[in-house]
Order: sequence, then structure tokens, then C-alpha cells
Amino acid sequence: MRKIYVIGIGAGDPDHLTLQAAKAIGRTDVFFLLDKGETKQSLVDLRERMIRGYSTPRRRIVEGRDPDRDRAPADYTGTIADWRTRRSQVIEDLIAEHLKDEETGSFLVWGDPSLYDSTIAILDEILGRGAITFEYEVIPGVSSVSALAAKHRIGLNRVGQPFQVTTGRRLAEGWPEGADDVVVMLDAQQAFTGHPDAEIYWGAYLGTEDELLASGRVADVADEILSTRAEARERHGWIMDTYLLRRHASD
Amino acid sequence: MRKIYVIGIGAGDPDHLTLQAAKAIGRTDVFFLLDKGETKQSLVDLRERMIRGYSTPRRRIVEGRDPDRDRAPADYTGTIADWRTRRSQVIEDLIAEHLKDEETGSFLVWGDPSLYDSTIAILDEILGRGAITFEYEVIPGVSSVSALAAKHRIGLNRVGQPFQVTTGRRLAEGWPEGADDVVVMLDAQQAFTGHPDAEIYWGAYLGTEDELLASGRVADVADEILSTRAEARERHGWIMDTYLLRRHASD
Ligand SMILES: C[S@@+](CC[C@H](N)C(=O)[O-])C[C@H]1O[C@@H](n2cnc3c(N)ncnc32)[C@H](O)[C@@H]1O
Ligand SMILES: C[S@@+](CC[C@H](N)C(=O)[O-])C[C@H]1O[C@@H](n2cnc3c(N)ncnc32)[C@H](O)[C@@H]1O
Repeated sequence: MRKIYVIGIGAGDPDHLTLQAAKAIGRTDVFFLLDKGETKQSLVDLRERMIRGYSTPRRRIVEGRDPDRDRAPADYTGTIADWRTRRSQVIEDLIAEHLKDEETGSFLVWGDPSLYDSTIAILDEILGRGAITFEYEVIPGVSSVSALAAKHRIGLNRVGQPFQVTTGRRLAEGWPEGADDVVVMLDAQQAFTGHPDAEIYWGAYLGTEDELLASGRVADVADEILSTRAEARERHGWIMDTYLLRRHASD
Repeated sequence: MRKIYVIGIGAGDPDHLTLQAAKAIGRTDVFFLLDKGETKQSLVDLRERMIRGYSTPRRRIVEGRDPDRDRAPADYTGTIADWRTRRSQVIEDLIAEHLKDEETGSFLVWGDPSLYDSTIAILDEILGRGAITFEYEVIPGVSSVSALAAKHRIGLNRVGQPFQVTTGRRLAEGWPEGADDVVVMLDAQQAFTGHPDAEIYWGAYLGTEDELLASGRVADVADEILSTRAEARERHGWIMDTYLLRRHASD
């Protein structure tokens, strides 16, 4: 039986790697790397550093080319689903061609695999088609959300209270019901600017040498974040940022 | 200046420890351990194993006694706040007495320090009183939520959708607004039973040798979870469990 690991490698700091992840990397025969057709060089560097640091000399690296994806689709969920299917076919072919029976393959996932990542769904889709078989295991990692909270030295929840994790796209539709504390990921539109009275705890490139942090009342710090963000994005060619928005309890 | 680390050590599996956490343990002069007045032996064992494994022979261990706490208070938030203040006084005294200038002290926190944990708030409260000073750093860890998702091989969110993290106490008041996917922690009342049509992904003692997992439609698996849970709790004297509830999208 083929074996596959989905390994959370942390959100940017090489020392976020867990012992469990390092051991799984050490047991890997084949690493599957997908180039996202973008140059997020820090991601590529981090993955390579981990493979170099913890794998055996016999390991092979297989690079695949991600199918292209519409970056601003009208039908977001449908477009993602379609892209996922095309992507899963690419990955199925890579596994079929490069991972021999009894071998172990790994996918290195940014942060924690349970948060806004499609690797698990893709493997399930491949297994569902039934053309190839393998067993697979997921190794949790430090998420960018935990990294954000640690750097700001905050809890995500207030005592006994809930919090919501959502996307910039959703926040742009209004403050979500049911929570006064909201973690926002995948925000390409800086939706926090719509909530001037909230407190924001913002972080970009968390855990990397380029890490940026800012916090305060949105009304006071939004301009600073917007200009810092635009300038950094220009310089690096990409940005990954996330933030917690906290408003006064509604009750 | 005194230095303090708040170190997330993962949710139960010793291999959830990150390299960053292991290094911080290695730099620690004094470990502050608080006994919760309960016998969660796995927690105590895990902490001791980590100290043994990664600290230097010179390190000291200081054990404090947690103030007692009303387990079923009428005013939950007020009671927690009061308990936190008494607890912060105990901890302040321990730091003042045992951590010398230029030394490094550490608190080992279960899972990730940003999730339903009071250590950060307590250190802020001590600094706010101004009687002693120190600098402190938070080291993120693998949370029980990430461990749960990994073991069930699921994502916490559905594509582009939000999810909420909340407590059993809150869920018992009804399904939270604003999310169809809900992670529940600190549930002493098995509030999932109120939602028979949802899917549940449940885990107890995650990452430990005693780990228990169950999943399915609540209506189908609730009885099994309730009896497994009661039996395990009886046998161990304590239980830590968490779960994801997922209902059909409301739109
Ligand atoms: C596709 S999601 C993957 C999240 C990942 N699985 C995790 O656990 O962090 C990408 C989003 O995660 C956040 N993110 C990931 N890494 C980050 C980092 N180092 N700094 C800031 N945000 C990050 C950003 O919001 C980004 O848009
Ligand atoms: C006080 S909170 C601390 C959470 C911790 N900071 C974390 O990141 O997991 C304790 C709650 O976390 C969850 N929990 C912690 N460790 C767990 C484990 N090993 N298995 C299942 N649930 C766990 C349970 O819901 C428990 O009631």
C-alpha cells in the first residue's frame, strides 16, 4: 500500500516545525511540490529548507504544475470546486507515476492543514474516483492564526466567549453575526477598513524575517497598515497577512 | 531583566512539540508548574517528560498551588475574573521569590496559548499591577482543534466559509448565528445532543495513548459518544474532549 503524509509545516518560522513533522519528513521517499504559478519565494525556500534539513539523501522531489485559476471569479465556490478537480487530476497522475507501492509520499502544507487548505479535500477526491489507492495521514501544524496571536501576545477568545474565523470576502459583507472577535484570513481587499471602531491585531509574513505587525483602533492604524501592506507587497511581489478584529461586546 | 516564556506544548502528543518550544525549554532556568487541584495525570506526565527531555540539568522546578475555583458558578465571567486575579497574585509571588534578575522562567501551556487559556491574561495583570517587571514571549503550539481535525482528516472550514469556535456552555443556548461549522471546547454538558441532524467529529484525550475518536450524524452516534465518554471519564478521573459540529449550509 502507498502511504501519503499531509504535513503542516507551520506558518513561516522554520522552528514552528513539530517533532512529528520532522520525523514524517525523514520517512518520506517522495516529496510532491506544487508550484502555484506564483513566486512566493519564502514558501518555496521554507519547504526546501525543511526537506534539506530533515529528509534522507535517497528522497526524491517531484514538482507539478498547478492548473491555472481564475483569481477573481464571479462564482467563487464553483470556481474553486472546478479548480480543485483539475488539480486533483494533476496530483493523481503524479502519485500514479512517481510513488511506488510501499513507498511514502508527502505534501508539505503551509500552517495547519485544517485551515483554508485544499490538500485533504483533493486526496479524498482522488480516493473517491477509485483509480488509485493509498492510505494517508494528516500531521497538524502551527497555524498562522496561532502565530499571529503569539506575536501579539493575545488570546483569540475573550473569557467564555466564542470567536469566528472567516475570509476577507465575507467580512466585506458586514461584521459576522454571533461573535465579537473575528479572525480574518485570505483578505485581498482589506475589509477591516469597514470597521473603524474595532481593535485590530494585524500580521504579515508571520514567522519570517519579513514579519510585519501592527495593532490599535482601526480608525487610528488603518492608514499605516494600508501603506505598509502596499509597500511590502510591491517589494516582495506577494503578501500573506491575517488579523484579529475585536469589537466591544454587544451585550 | 527577567524573561518569561509562555510555551504551547501541543495537545497531548509529545511529538507535537515544536523546535521553537524545545529550544525555549532548553533556555529555561525555572519552570513554573501550577497544580490545578485535579489529577489530570496525562498533563502532568507530558509536562515532566518535556522538561526531562529538553531542559538543562541546572533548571529548577517551582510548583504552585492554584487557588480553588467554583466549578459551576452562577456568574461565569465574574467568577473567572476573580479567580484569575487570585491566581495572578499566587504567580506573582512565585516569580518574585524564585526568578532572579537575568533568569528565564517558563510556563508550559496545553495546546496553543491563544485558545481558552488564562496564562497571557495573568501575566498582563501582573505587569499591570507594576509590583514586579519582566519581559515575556509567547510560543505558539499545536492546538487540540488542529489535532482533532488532523485525526479526522478534515478541514475546519468549508470552501470560502467561516467557522466558529465556542464553548459547550454557549452551544447549549442554541446553534450560534453566523456559522454552519462550529468547534466546541470546554463542554461539560455534551451540548451536541441538542443538534441531532448535524455531523459530529469528536475526539477525547487527543494525541495521548488514550485517544478516542468518533464521527457521524449526531442522531446516530450520540449514544455511543455519551457512553464511551462516561466510561472513560470514570476510568481516568477526568476527560478533555472537543468536537466539530457541521450542519447543512443554511443558504
Ligand atoms: C490558503 S490560507 C492557508 C492557511 C494555512 N493553512 C494556515 O494554517 O495558516 C492562506 C492565508 O493564511 C494566512 N497566512 C498564512 N501564512 C501566513 C503568514 N506567515 N503570515 C500572515 N498570514 C498568513 C493569510 O491570511 C493567507 O491569506
Ligand atoms: C482550557 S482549554 C485549553 C485549550 C488549549 N489551549 C488548546 O489549544 O487546545 C481546555 C479544552 O481544550 C480541549 N482539549 C485540550 N486538549 C485536548 C485533548 N488532548 N483532547 C481533546 N480535547 C482537548 C477540550 O475541549 C478542553 O475542554
